[in-house]
Order: sequence, then C-alpha cells, then structure tokens
Amino acid sequence: MSLSEFDLIDHYFKRSSKAENSGVAIGIGDDCAVLDVPDGYQLAVTTDSLVCDIHFFADVDPYRLGYKSLAVNLRELAGMGAEPKWISLAITLPENILPAENAQWLAEFSRGFFELADKCNAQLVGGDTTKGPLSITVSVKGIVPRGLALQRSTAQAGDLICVSGSLGNGALGLACRLDECTPENRQYFIDALELTEPRLELGILLRSLASSCMDISDGLTQDLKHILKSSSCSARLDIDKLPLSDLMHHEIQSGSISEHQAEQYALTGGDDYELLFTISAVNLAQLNLLIEKSEVKIPAISVIGSVMPQQLPLIQLFKDNKAVFFSLQGWDHFKGQD
Amino acid sequence: MSLSEFDLIDHYFKRSSKAENSGVAIGIGDDCAVLDVPDGYQLAVTTDSLVCDIHFFADVDPYRLGYKSLAVNLRELAGMGAEPKWISLAITLPENILPAENAQWLAEFSRGFFELADKCNAQLVGGDTTKGPLSITVSVKGIVPRGLALQRSTAQAGDLICVSGSLGNGALGLACRLDECTPENRQYFIDALELTEPRLELGILLRSLASSCMDISDGLTQDLKHILKSSSCSARLDIDKLPLSDLMHHEIQSGSISEHQAEQYALTGGDDYELLFTISAVNLAQLNLLIEKSEVKIPAISVIGSVMPQQLPLIQLFKDNKAVFFSLQGWDHFKGQD
Repeated sequence: MSLSEFDLIDHYFKRSSKAENSGVAIGIGDDCAVLDVPDGYQLAVTTDSLVCDIHFFADVDPYRLGYKSLAVNLRELAGMGAEPKWISLAITLPENILPAENAQWLAEFSRGFFELADKCNAQLVGGDTTKGPLSITVSVKGIVPRGLALQRSTAQAGDLICVSGSLGNGALGLACRLDECTPENRQYFIDALELTEPRLELGILLRSLASSCMDISDGLTQDLKHILKSSSCSARLDIDKLPLSDLMHHEIQSGSISEHQAEQYALTGGDDYELLFTISAVNLAQLNLLIEKSEVKIPAISVIGSVMPQQLPLIQLFKDNKAVFFSLQGWDHFKGQD
Repeated sequence: MSLSEFDLIDHYFKRSSKAENSGVAIGIGDDCAVLDVPDGYQLAVTTDSLVCDIHFFADVDPYRLGYKSLAVNLRELAGMGAEPKWISLAITLPENILPAENAQWLAEFSRGFFELADKCNAQLVGGDTTKGPLSITVSVKGIVPRGLALQRSTAQAGDLICVSGSLGNGALGLACRLDECTPENRQYFIDALELTEPRLELGILLRSLASSCMDISDGLTQDLKHILKSSSCSARLDIDKLPLSDLMHHEIQSGSISEHQAEQYALTGGDDYELLFTISAVNLAQLNLLIEKSEVKIPAISVIGSVMPQQLPLIQLFKDNKAVFFSLQGWDHFKGQD
C-alpha cells in the first residue's frame, strides 16, 4: 500500500493547532489558507529553500532537517522584529523516502518541524508535496506592529554595532561535518549548526531601540555590508571584540583550531542565527536593562564596532586598536567563496 | 564574470512595482517583505512547487515556465474568490542555466513571470535563489473581504454543479507533449496546457453567489470529490454536458481522438485552470447577468450536474440520462494514475 499525496498531507502535516490566537479562518485542506492579520499590524513574509547537497547533507537527521527548514525562516522574522504566525511548507521528496518505504523519515521530519513551530506559537496552514529531488521551501508569515519593522537601511553614523550570542559556532560545526576539523566538542558545534534557536524575543525587544537590524545568514561581514550599503555608511569592526563561545575559546586553547581560524569563522561563517544590529549608546543601556528583566532567556549582547560616515573601505578591521587586513568574503550561493 | 546571488536577484527580479495600491511597505532586499493587508480583508495564501521532469519538461520554454509557475498559484486564489497582491518566488537553478552560461533562460523566465504578475496586478516581494536541481516554488498572497472566501465544504444538496470555460484542453495538450496523440490543432492544446489564464474575475463574482468553489487542478471528478466529501454530499454528473472546446469537437469529428477519450480528458485531466462550483439556480441566473455585463471577458458557465444528499457512490455518472460507468481516477503526485 502506498500513501497518496492527500493521505500524506493528512497523516504527517494536518493536525489541530497548538498555536494560541492563531488567526486561521481556513487552514489546510482548501485551495488557500485564509488568515486574519490583527488590526494595527503589518504582515512580514519570508521564504527560504533548503536543497539536498547544497544546504544539507543527504544523510542529515530528518528531525534536524525539519527543525532547520523552519529555523532559517524564523531567523529572518527575528531580524525584522516580527512574531511568527503562519507557515507554508513545500516539500519535494524522492520516491525512496516516500512513506511506504520509509515512514520514519517523514515522522521524524515533521516532529522536528512541529517542535520548533509549537515553541514559536506558529501554525502550519498549507503547502505542497511533490515528487522529485529532495528539497524543502518554507515560507513564514509573521506580524509586526505597523511601522515598527526593523530595517537594514536605517543605520546612522555614531551608532554602535552589536551582535547577540556568540559567533562562529555554526561555521565550525560545518567544518566538522565536512571533516575539515576535529575539535574536542565536535557535537556541540554540529548542534550549533543544526539546532540553533532563532532570536525572536530579542528581535521584538529591538523594535523601538535598534536603528537597523538583520539576521546573520551569509556571515557577519557580508551581512554588515548589506546594512552599510543600504544605509550609506561605513564601519569600524574590532576583531578582538567578536563574541566567541566558551567552548570555542577552549578549542583555541587546546590547539584544535587557531585563533585566526576562529576569528575567520566569526567574521565570515554563516549559520549563526544571531542578530546584527546598530543602536545608540543610550538605547543599548535600555536594551540591556530589558534583557536583564526578561522572563525568557535572551543571549548577551556584544558591542563589536561602530558605524562611521560613508567612506571606503566599507569595513575597517581593527585588532587591539590596530588596523588589520582579513579576507572578508561571506557565503554566496552562486559564487562560492573567493 | 559570473553573477552572484545578489546580482542575480537585482538583475532579473528586483524592479519597480507596476502594481497599483501595492500595499508593500518594505519589498525585496530586506530580511522579509512587510505588507499592508487593508482593513476589512483577510489574507489568502497558497504555495505550489513545480519540479523539472515532474511538472514540466526539461526543455520547456522558460517564458512559459515563468508564466505557469505563477498561474498554478493564481488559480487557487481564484478558487477562493481572492485577489492576488504579493508573490514570493523560490527558484533552484542548476549551474548550467546560471546567468553567466545562459542569461537568456532567466530573462525569458522572468518575462513570462512578470507578464502574468502585471496582468493580475500582483507584485513580487521576495524569495530565494539557490543552486540545485531545477525547481520553482511560488507562494502568492491575496486578499479577500472578511468572511467571503469561497470554500469547499459548503455545497448543499439541490445546488447545481457548474464549471467555467471548457474542459480537457490541458490534458490533450499534455498528451501532445508526450507524443501520445497528434491532433490537427496541436499547438492550441499545448498553449492550453502552458499558458492558461486563471479565472480570477470569475472567482470574485462568485464570492457571494456560489455555495462552494475550488479550482480544477487534479481533474474534475477528483476535485468534485473533495467538495462532496467535505460537504457531506454526493453528486449526479452528466457527461454529455461537459463543456468541450470547439477545437476539441473538431478533433473528435476529424477522428484525431475518440469521443470517449475527450470525455476522459474532461473528467479526469488536470491543468484546465477552470473553476468548479456549486450554486443555486436563482444565483446562477444572477451570475449569468453579471457575466453578461462584465467589462472583462469571463468564460461561459456550464451546468454539468447537481448536488445530491450524502450517499454512495459519491459521483453517479449519466450520459443521455442513462447511468454509465467510467474510470474516475484523477492525478495524484505520489500514486500516479490507477
């Protein structure tokens, strides 16, 4: 017996909502989902595709793939200060992981997917299942109070440049998966690559405090350039202020990786799911107070540089207050790394 | 020189809007698009993937692929009575049709895509470009006055069953592309498969007149079953009332295809982009008046049967008022045709 497309949707993806105040007038099963955007809010929409052998390994744990296919979209909502509400999932599956052959794969994929969806109070409202080379396209719709969406183009000279959490863990995780590196805490870095949580609560706090914001997806410097170009500014970036995790410091001390390599990961690695933002010193103090008082855990904020007037080079790197040079290419799907 | 992902997005997909009252607060180029749903409206969302060798031929004209990747979504909005507003496009491209190698392919794809987008007053607001096996996932967001979205689950015994336009042209077009058939007007049927217009204006007229509605995507009987099951009804369907195009009649008369084959196409073929709906006789009269008065061309409506109380079989087929039997399997991506 093989499950048909409709059975498949029903079995793995159609479930009663766990989201509160879901705003879903018509959900899965009709031509379209019909959704209620609350008064005073705007809709924030993002779409990302994960393709086998490009964005994930063919042998990836399907639980982690389900989780990550949603997380990559949620981090973009976080970068806008939006709250996730509704999810569309388009999944293309080769014959050999059809339910008849491997029900376990889909069960695990949907478990990872829904675990993160539930945690973020977002509801799956529709999608498409097709046969073909394995790929997943997720589109998340969120809401943000009118006029408060965080943008890239609004940084101002004099602002501080900040990032949340620590940088480079995801890139080292990728190096582990590629067997380029064997740190002592291998699994920790792979988890950072595959199971990182998007910074949604922080994004919401930043709405009325940050002057500009985006999620780090292509690497810190590459993404900072997006802010600088669209804001007509430049930046000073202090490499010695880049926040590395305790375990990253441990790997440097134990000699598993060089300090330079760790800095390279932090500067240009993708997959960190942290937020990059610019903010005035006054507002940063207020943000830190709010973070202290917050009931949900929000990662620490590090000041890593400052926004300067428009000039070239776009980014000036410093280490111990001395200008340094570094290869600064982020990840670009079609160009690869220079 | 190779174009990077950002250049690619800029070059082919970032353009100033031609849509009126676009409602786009933040468009392509930030983490998310930020959109304004007008007061009193709900959001209608649909997502469809087209995968090479499954939904289209590898040698497909890219202009037509661009057009169709949008059209398959728009027909679902039409089935809800929604107006399209915003589009997200996730496109996965193999290396050999990268711009450096074949700029023409993307130029033609985007030309077909935007031609239909402009015609429907919808705006591209974001998306994703990745490397991998060729596939396209489009998500369209539309709006519909609160509470007026057309649903599947609201058909009532006694209603008439109607379809717009003519049926079976798309299926015969597919048979032509598969070289299963050589009708005299081959290109006409291939055009019906690849360039059909979604019935958006009709969907809007049906909002307050039809009791249930959906677009025909999996084949008439398969889709009618969705309405009947979710409405707890059955149906009488008159095969001799199925609307065939003039050129389909011509092919039957010239012996290119049998009458039975044409009826099979009309009953079970997908890709017709027409609307299937149920409606009271009184409301149908009113609809026909509105269609007559309409300034935009709306296809003729055919009554092809009636909704009956819940009973088995779900669909009773009649021809010249006599009960007949027919193989009635629609298209299902994972099962194929029985």
